[in-house]
Amino acid sequence: MKTTPVKGTRDILPRESRLRDYMQSEILRVYRAAGFERIGTPVLEDIGNLRQSEGGENLGLIFKVMKRGEKLEKALSEGGDPADIGLRYDLTLPLARFYAMNRAKLLSPFKVIQIDRAFRAEQPQQGRLREFYQCDIDILGDESPNAETELLAVTARALLTLGLTGFTIKVNDRRILDALLGALGFATEEYPAVFVAADKLDKVGASGVRAELLEKGLGEEKVDALLGILEESDGLDAAEKLCGDLPAFSSLRDILRVSRDLAGDDYNAVFDLTLVRGQGYYTGTVFEISVPGFGGSVAGGGRYDRMIGKFCGEDVPAVGFSIGFERICAILLERGFSIPGERPRAAVLYKAGDFPAACARAEALRENFDAAVYAMPKKPGPFIARLAENGYGFIQVIGRDGDIRPIS
Amino acid sequence: MKTTPVKGTRDILPRESRLRDYMQSEILRVYRAAGFERIGTPVLEDIGNLRQSEGGENLGLIFKVMKRGEKLEKALSEGGDPADIGLRYDLTLPLARFYAMNRAKLLSPFKVIQIDRAFRAEQPQQGRLREFYQCDIDILGDESPNAETELLAVTARALLTLGLTGFTIKVNDRRILDALLGALGFATEEYPAVFVAADKLDKVGASGVRAELLEKGLGEEKVDALLGILEESDGLDAAEKLCGDLPAFSSLRDILRVSRDLAGDDYNAVFDLTLVRGQGYYTGTVFEISVPGFGGSVAGGGRYDRMIGKFCGEDVPAVGFSIGFERICAILLERGFSIPGERPRAAVLYKAGDFPAACARAEALRENFDAAVYAMPKKPGPFIARLAENGYGFIQVIGRDGDIRPIS
Repeated sequence: MKTTPVKGTRDILPRESRLRDYMQSEILRVYRAAGFERIGTPVLEDIGNLRQSEGGENLGLIFKVMKRGEKLEKALSEGGDPADIGLRYDLTLPLARFYAMNRAKLLSPFKVIQIDRAFRAEQPQQGRLREFYQCDIDILGDESPNAETELLAVTARALLTLGLTGFTIKVNDRRILDALLGALGFATEEYPAVFVAADKLDKVGASGVRAELLEKGLGEEKVDALLGILEESDGLDAAEKLCGDLPAFSSLRDILRVSRDLAGDDYNAVFDLTLVRGQGYYTGTVFEISVPGFGGSVAGGGRYDRMIGKFCGEDVPAVGFSIGFERICAILLERGFSIPGERPRAAVLYKAGDFPAACARAEALRENFDAAVYAMPKKPGPFIARLAENGYGFIQVIGRDGDIRPIS
Repeated sequence: MKTTPVKGTRDILPRESRLRDYMQSEILRVYRAAGFERIGTPVLEDIGNLRQSEGGENLGLIFKVMKRGEKLEKALSEGGDPADIGLRYDLTLPLARFYAMNRAKLLSPFKVIQIDRAFRAEQPQQGRLREFYQCDIDILGDESPNAETELLAVTARALLTLGLTGFTIKVNDRRILDALLGALGFATEEYPAVFVAADKLDKVGASGVRAELLEKGLGEEKVDALLGILEESDGLDAAEKLCGDLPAFSSLRDILRVSRDLAGDDYNAVFDLTLVRGQGYYTGTVFEISVPGFGGSVAGGGRYDRMIGKFCGEDVPAVGFSIGFERICAILLERGFSIPGERPRAAVLYKAGDFPAACARAEALRENFDAAVYAMPKKPGPFIARLAENGYGFIQVIGRDGDIRPIS
């Protein structure tokens, strides 16, 4: 039998489990305090739903679950599809299905929390997990930019509660990107190449982006015009001058203004014309959070006004923001985060025959301690040292004089 | 796109989500207070590990995940196994793998908590879920019956905390069953038929069990001897008279005696010779909890001293007890359980332009309320009624005279 977890997955040891439970309960507390309601959906999802979900490159990363019994035999012998179920690659598609199914029972707008697993068959050499948790909040049924502003504020509050500060929320709007590239004279089929290159501006600089775009055969004049705007101190002004009076601009300015008021000195909210996000289902604003000193993003989201309509035939405006739980957990572990308010741990040791007395004593201690009962081991020294390594601060030996004492 | 969840799975609405979060945090609190430590393992498990796990009928219910890329093509074209991963059918096999992998870092004995999903491709017409939660505690590395006694006591305490009382813990030992059937003259290959029939004693009575066994062609004399023992008021005495002085008897008497002391008047602990449990991996004690008024069991477990050895080459004594989370949740919902200590819910309504003021007011309310912000709807009456249906007790309209008020 294999003792290692399946490739790309991992086991969680007790110390990290405590941190994860703390993180989850704090995030949930902040989200519930803001009037969001948690729901649950299965990790098993109809394979047809997943395939039609416009999930971008995630569609190539779906774990497929095989049919069973006669249906499987038929599929294998006749060359049909052997899979009828997939593991969800995010929590957005299941939410859209859930809302279409249950909307008659829900508040509208519906403010919703999901904290749960998703799966992607990533190449493990990139260090990406194939099984991971996300913490999402979404607002369904609100087309106003107040929905975006609220998601940014509440997500930021969750991160602040976990001790993260000084992070940057980047905001963009797909409609602005499209209008800008159109105004600069790019052809629609050139957009994806521009998005991919512009996304690297932070890493490779303007000259790197320029080189990549020219190499791809895009016209030098429009490439330079684009880079001029990307490098402007306020790209939003420059973009608006070129694109004219789109509703996306006033909506984005509104989101940034209120978000900056709510942020105070705790974090930043900026316009970032290079922000794209990979999913095909986004229709308007997109946003991301980056933490200084840690590459990549710790949260991402956007507006997806046309996904729910695919389930119920009627479009419902929708916007969501997802915290990458694994990424935040890794950052807190790296920082040596210590969990506030943990109860002290005590071990009650007993010799043969004293088990019931040890149980009774431990039960009394549980008012103030997490108290475990252990038979006195043959070599108490190494055992007590191991207790201390595992976070135990106190010990009591039943039948011996004296009360509970600190492990020295 | 399909709006219904995959067959045999279900969506969890906000009200049930609150109950589930409460249940999980209470169970976790009780388990941690008793000195157990939580771990996490992936739901994805090596298919070979699952197939060799002696899981009884669960082995036929494994959801198989397909290989990907070239490996899949090769398997399909050459008639090889298209699956390399399975979804775990319980939390015991992943725990054994985890322990074999990480034992050098863990306390020994290791007292461990798992609260997580498992999957079984059950026939949905039987009302069984294909995706469900279990809450397990296990003690690894303790061969003494104190381990069983502690699991029974701590699991019972978790159920009491959730408001269940008067339940019955049934205990048996596979070694006693085997010895008894041997002493009565049954052949080894007849044991499974006897187990299946005896398991129905509660439902069909002694005459029903007798009829089934005779129909299967088992000898009348030994069947009647067996029924005599099953119907004894203290079957343990009768069994011991027949089987002689096995260590399993003193161990079982010890577990029952201490468990009854700890139980007081809150619940019962009884010997039940008809208790078998389906899994092939159990090697000694088996136990189950039933709640009056609800058929079937709400928790089950037993000793599996030889599973970890399959991973690390050296047997490690192990015993576990699993709460059926979905079953308990269904019982509490049916009883109209109300969650203690929930924060009151308030809605802050605003008109155009008042969104920032509404955010500020809601944030102030969050010291005492879960406070949501909503734009004033066109028809406030039905919206406020819907708020009340969803558990909101208070409302404030920004810009109108007066403070927060109860929804009347």
